[in-house]
Amino acid sequence: MRILYHLPLSPYARKVRLVLAEKRLPFELRLEKTWERRPEYLALNPAGTVPTLTEENGLVIPHSNTICEYLDEAYPDISLVGRTLGERVEIRAVTAWFDERFAAEVSRNLLYEKTMKPVAKRGAPDAARLREGYAALRLHMNYIGHLAETRKYLAGANLSLADFAAAAHLSALDFIGDVDWAAAPAAKEWYARIKSRPSFRALLADRVSGFNPPPHYADLDF
Amino acid sequence: MRILYHLPLSPYARKVRLVLAEKRLPFELRLEKTWERRPEYLALNPAGTVPTLTEENGLVIPHSNTICEYLDEAYPDISLVGRTLGERVEIRAVTAWFDERFAAEVSRNLLYEKTMKPVAKRGAPDAARLREGYAALRLHMNYIGHLAETRKYLAGANLSLADFAAAAHLSALDFIGDVDWAAAPAAKEWYARIKSRPSFRALLADRVSGFNPPPHYADLDF
Repeated sequence: MRILYHLPLSPYARKVRLVLAEKRLPFELRLEKTWERRPEYLALNPAGTVPTLTEENGLVIPHSNTICEYLDEAYPDISLVGRTLGERVEIRAVTAWFDERFAAEVSRNLLYEKTMKPVAKRGAPDAARLREGYAALRLHMNYIGHLAETRKYLAGANLSLADFAAAAHLSALDFIGDVDWAAAPAAKEWYARIKSRPSFRALLADRVSGFNPPPHYADLDF
Repeated sequence: MRILYHLPLSPYARKVRLVLAEKRLPFELRLEKTWERRPEYLALNPAGTVPTLTEENGLVIPHSNTICEYLDEAYPDISLVGRTLGERVEIRAVTAWFDERFAAEVSRNLLYEKTMKPVAKRGAPDAARLREGYAALRLHMNYIGHLAETRKYLAGANLSLADFAAAAHLSALDFIGDVDWAAAPAAKEWYARIKSRPSFRALLADRVSGFNPPPHYADLDF
């Protein structure tokens, strides 16, 4: 059986779960408490991060973008990385924007401080980082809205990995109640479209002890 | 003409310069002082980072891995991302290790503090970050040595993007005299092989005002 090692609030693991579901590839989800640094897991992925995917043939694939590129090459029927060179450039660039820039400016400051730090017993959230994260999130929401108003999906006319990368980060932030949807109607309209896809259902059913998602989290008409 | 916007000590721009040279693709190098946040450059690459590649047909490609994936797809004669699914997974995972983990633990702490921070007038290097960077560099040099002793190149039997990613980071650190080669003979042996490739020549000829690389920097028999 294909296994995905994950943490429920990891945006990178969420992105891979969405890609697997979009491609209709069955998999077993396994919780990996990365802060415990389990030797068996470090043998699979020396970086010790989630996600890691293992295939039934024994192939071990660490790192979310390595996994997504692999899945698009191994199971190309439903492509999420684009067809033409130009489409592929745009999709990869927008995906990297969310997985690197949005991650550093927003997810690192909000998600990590509020969820990973307490769980990994690394102290209380840092107030300066939270302020920085909320300020950056407002700018990014405007940028998402701008993209969603000028093209159908975030990286162009077609649904792609870029939409799932962005939605993965936002869904984890939404779980902890940190997204002010009322202030970003264009981004909200785009997110509602992505969130209503069948691939999103498993994410909306996630429960994490110690956290209560807001009522709109799993509501498709929020 | 193909143009690469770069900074001489950016490991990401150096990686792309190596890939372009390995693929024998001619290009013009243009210095982009990213801290000036030139509006014309931000229009090409909203992240404002280097590198960005522009093709003669007008295609604009930001982000080093997006550029490398594009170059491997557009000019596949000399492939640097592997042939089989398994090779491609390993090459991308090792490349990501250097571009993300090595970058965060070493390059961010040493290169950024010592070169970018003064140039961008963001204050003096932070002593705690320098200490952290040197300690992490020692561990990473051992890991590179371990990889180089157990396989011919860092991601397997063939030279790949992973070697150029690692060599790009190390070459920039070597330029500022931060690599203790005597303490890491296996890593040094691997690096000497990569450094002696013709694609490396332009990097070894780099000069940056305010910095004097150590005598061994451009010496192939260092």
